[in-house]
Amino acid sequence: MVNYQEILDAIYEKLQKRVDKGTVASYIPELADVPKEKFGIYLNRINGDDYFVGDWEEPFSIQSISKVLSFALAFSKLKNQVFRRLDVEPSGNPFNHLSLLEMENGIPRNPFINSGAIVIADMLISLLDDPKNDFLAFVRGITNDDTIQYNKVVAASEAETGYGNYAAANLLKSFGNLENEVERVLDFYFHQCSIEMNCQQLSNAFYLFANRGKCMQNTTHLTINQVKRINAIMLTCGFYDEAGEFAFEVGLPGKSGVGGGIVALLPNEFTLSCWSPGLNEKGNSYLGMLALEEFTTQTNLSIF
Amino acid sequence: MVNYQEILDAIYEKLQKRVDKGTVASYIPELADVPKEKFGIYLNRINGDDYFVGDWEEPFSIQSISKVLSFALAFSKLKNQVFRRLDVEPSGNPFNHLSLLEMENGIPRNPFINSGAIVIADMLISLLDDPKNDFLAFVRGITNDDTIQYNKVVAASEAETGYGNYAAANLLKSFGNLENEVERVLDFYFHQCSIEMNCQQLSNAFYLFANRGKCMQNTTHLTINQVKRINAIMLTCGFYDEAGEFAFEVGLPGKSGVGGGIVALLPNEFTLSCWSPGLNEKGNSYLGMLALEEFTTQTNLSIF
Amino acid sequence: MVNYQEILDAIYEKLQKRVDKGTVASYIPELADVPKEKFGIYLNRINGDDYFVGDWEEPFSIQSISKVLSFALAFSKLKNQVFRRLDVEPSGNPFNHLSLLEMENGIPRNPFINSGAIVIADMLISLLDDPKNDFLAFVRGITNDDTIQYNKVVAASEAETGYGNYAAANLLKSFGNLENEVERVLDFYFHQCSIEMNCQQLSNAFYLFANRGKCMQNTTHLTINQVKRINAIMLTCGFYDEAGEFAFEVGLPGKSGVGGGIVALLPNEFTLSCWSPGLNEKGNSYLGMLALEEFTTQTNLSIF
Amino acid sequence: MVNYQEILDAIYEKLQKRVDKGTVASYIPELADVPKEKFGIYLNRINGDDYFVGDWEEPFSIQSISKVLSFALAFSKLKNQVFRRLDVEPSGNPFNHLSLLEMENGIPRNPFINSGAIVIADMLISLLDDPKNDFLAFVRGITNDDTIQYNKVVAASEAETGYGNYAAANLLKSFGNLENEVERVLDFYFHQCSIEMNCQQLSNAFYLFANRGKCMQNTTHLTINQVKRINAIMLTCGFYDEAGEFAFEVGLPGKSGVGGGIVALLPNEFTLSCWSPGLNEKGNSYLGMLALEEFTTQTNLSIF
Repeated sequence: MVNYQEILDAIYEKLQKRVDKGTVASYIPELADVPKEKFGIYLNRINGDDYFVGDWEEPFSIQSISKVLSFALAFSKLKNQVFRRLDVEPSGNPFNHLSLLEMENGIPRNPFINSGAIVIADMLISLLDDPKNDFLAFVRGITNDDTIQYNKVVAASEAETGYGNYAAANLLKSFGNLENEVERVLDFYFHQCSIEMNCQQLSNAFYLFANRGKCMQNTTHLTINQVKRINAIMLTCGFYDEAGEFAFEVGLPGKSGVGGGIVALLPNEFTLSCWSPGLNEKGNSYLGMLALEEFTTQTNLSIF
Repeated sequence: MVNYQEILDAIYEKLQKRVDKGTVASYIPELADVPKEKFGIYLNRINGDDYFVGDWEEPFSIQSISKVLSFALAFSKLKNQVFRRLDVEPSGNPFNHLSLLEMENGIPRNPFINSGAIVIADMLISLLDDPKNDFLAFVRGITNDDTIQYNKVVAASEAETGYGNYAAANLLKSFGNLENEVERVLDFYFHQCSIEMNCQQLSNAFYLFANRGKCMQNTTHLTINQVKRINAIMLTCGFYDEAGEFAFEVGLPGKSGVGGGIVALLPNEFTLSCWSPGLNEKGNSYLGMLALEEFTTQTNLSIF
Repeated sequence: MVNYQEILDAIYEKLQKRVDKGTVASYIPELADVPKEKFGIYLNRINGDDYFVGDWEEPFSIQSISKVLSFALAFSKLKNQVFRRLDVEPSGNPFNHLSLLEMENGIPRNPFINSGAIVIADMLISLLDDPKNDFLAFVRGITNDDTIQYNKVVAASEAETGYGNYAAANLLKSFGNLENEVERVLDFYFHQCSIEMNCQQLSNAFYLFANRGKCMQNTTHLTINQVKRINAIMLTCGFYDEAGEFAFEVGLPGKSGVGGGIVALLPNEFTLSCWSPGLNEKGNSYLGMLALEEFTTQTNLSIF
Repeated sequence: MVNYQEILDAIYEKLQKRVDKGTVASYIPELADVPKEKFGIYLNRINGDDYFVGDWEEPFSIQSISKVLSFALAFSKLKNQVFRRLDVEPSGNPFNHLSLLEMENGIPRNPFINSGAIVIADMLISLLDDPKNDFLAFVRGITNDDTIQYNKVVAASEAETGYGNYAAANLLKSFGNLENEVERVLDFYFHQCSIEMNCQQLSNAFYLFANRGKCMQNTTHLTINQVKRINAIMLTCGFYDEAGEFAFEVGLPGKSGVGGGIVALLPNEFTLSCWSPGLNEKGNSYLGMLALEEFTTQTNLSIF
């Protein structure tokens, strides 16, 4: 019988002692100010048990993790039509993201690189009556938590300095792969990324991906087939250039964000969230990646 | 209770009627001459049951599928030292394989692209006393079948026309990532690719990857951790540029070869081999890919 | 003794009969509406003689030809400091302009590709008191013609649809290679490109590049060394992906624009302008390129 | 009246005092052993006057400079048919030469990058009865010097370590752009590069490019048109990634080699050879480049 709480405690104990905790993202003040000592873990088993340690109650900016949620909403509504405008291959390219977009005529490699998520944001704007409110309602619904909010200060900071995203969106537009105006799409996109959750909320939000499409309230949001496909994309494309490494070391579908959050899951078993704002050189939470490696090594739980 | 035989029969029945069976590889006469009507499936469950249909007894050239076996042997001997000379990221690049190798200073993206497998071949030559015989003995050992052979005619044909591989090996050599002479490494590599198996042998050979490192004779060849990592690389890198698509549609670790063979596996459950020589435009067996999709859809068996 | 008028007349006669006149640029209505029958040539010799034929008096949008003029102004003021922020190598890349910019960390290849000209526009905004008026005054000054104007309708059209330029400017900004705001830089850039000239004005404007830095009023605007360098950049980078071809076929420094204008020059001898709005597949005036080839072949005048 | 001898003497005096003389190529022992103090200049005017200083009589390996001579021979025989198998655009790519070849389907950018020169070597083998002897005879003929020789030791060293060239030749072969066997083509190519000349011979060999196709014995080897085109390719592609820089700084067609030789020319005026084995970081002779810059600055002689 695995003692999950003991395992989480031991991982927390060991890792929070590390002197090297990575580098906190500094491109906007709101992220740069988070103390890098913060470290929390929350494990949510499908059977209802949960386990947690450290700063699991403290909210953080989920950033790119939101790409899974926006893609899930677009996929549930548009079905395979989403793949008319983007692909599902790993980007496999550490150094030049716009290059690939340009060489492939404006079709993003997958929904979890920035250009792909911007295309998804564009789809949602075209689909939803009130995009920002409707998307937030979707996130609150699957998490069963109406306190989840956008952080408008973070969204505004991103809008001010997000030249790379403006470049990507304009490039998409020049290839005809953006229906709405650049400003409107990016405003939605920056809001989506600014959502704040704590580890518990994040684990709850991703429960449906481990539970064959049903959220914690047992409402079906996605078909089994859709869930399997989203998990496959998380595994192959969820960790930027570290995707292969993560599949290799951890062996779970998951997604990280520049705010230091990571969520991973084993289908039919659990979702597991970690948060620590210091990042490794690939841009994934330094302690979070180590915690996930430790967890799967000790429990021998992985999809492989 | 799933009736596997019924499912295989139905898939076979449905797919072999297809008029479009893809295009047989034509770059060497030995592959070009195989009739594209050939189609076989073999399912090997961990519990010992097996199921089969069509041309499952007919041997074919395993080609790139051999890359998993050579990597497994090198990995079991060199442990993580193999990763000093290659990476484990998906290549994600449909159009220019040498470009990536050049831009990344001679470090292949992963062991399943040609340049990566050539580096593995180089490692095995340095490691083994009698490389070709020792490697064949390893393959026969894990498969428990001493009839498995190289096809020397196929190996010779590849050597005559394999300019792309000569280019890759010389580029590796120019970056100092090849210890042995180009001719010797490629001779080993072309032999390795020329191994012939039928669907049953292929399913048996890959049994250890589904059975935590133990082959059908219960001998341990790889640690659990090594097996998990090999499976992760198969999932993310096993199907050339269709890797993401395959993870997405099928959801199983696997590997294909230009001879029309595909093998996939669900850890702790089964290995499944398909063979049909007609290829889709990405270079994977056309009927084989469809068969795997059908199988996982109907059985709902996948790692996700 | 060369009879220039006879040569121009013969070239005009021969080429204007061509059924295929290329394709008029259609991305903004103002360019798309120009009749492709238009064709004019104007030769301005350093000794004061001039020769002309066809629609040489009709103004057209000089577009990218303006990049030589903006670079000349920035170069005359900043001297070699301009090369802190851009390079002088040919781009040599038909298919992916932003890729190169991204791979080279936001340093444009040369001042005549869009990203390079946008950096120059940014420099001029920082340098000039009243950028748009001051730049126009410079152009009028070297041409000795105060009737030269921006076409504000063309500039506004470019601003509405120039997503590729917005992508480039934002990418430059993300690399820290743009001092001023994207909108302001592109507003200046689109105005600069919208300048209208006829063939005579264009030949007069470029007179200083053939006359060692002195314009037709004998005022020195550039040092001999600066002129030589600008001519070198025109030869190696003036014709997009056709630069090598142009140097090869024509053998003169020059610059083309998407409005169908081309200007070329032989140092100490002449400037020669052609205009015909139909473009070849590389984006250079179809009849203009042929006219220049004919001219240099018949006169045997070239720098080589 | 320009005093050429005085200018050469002053340049020699000034530059040979430099402590930094660049880095001698070390990839083969024969080149690595040349003392970096060596420095010679030879100026050959079309009117018959000549001027020289330093180690102008000492032979060195002309290496890539030979590409101009092999191209000239192929071009004179095949006329514009040579361009069916290669292009004339600058490569503009400092970091990945095979990438470009791969992306452009085996058509080299121009005859002066390695892959282009290998295609030319292949053409000459198909054209000539006794390729190595016939090519040497051509070089001796235009130079009017029967003492010019291949250095077989250098050629053999290149063959042993030239993995990058083997990679390029095999890649060309895989694209169907090599008629003869890789080994045979490279054997010819390595011999061609191993030709030894001193500065005087080099200036004499290139006399025909400054003299409208006629060598010093007044024999016509190339048409005026062909010469102009070869000069244009030298200017745009003669100095690797420094081509734009060289056109910009020096303003003369020319070609450099890894042995430290450089030859440049002003049509109808002169050819000028420099030799110093230390290379700058772009692979061109360090003192040689400086000498050429000084010469054109002081004499104000340039095509621009």
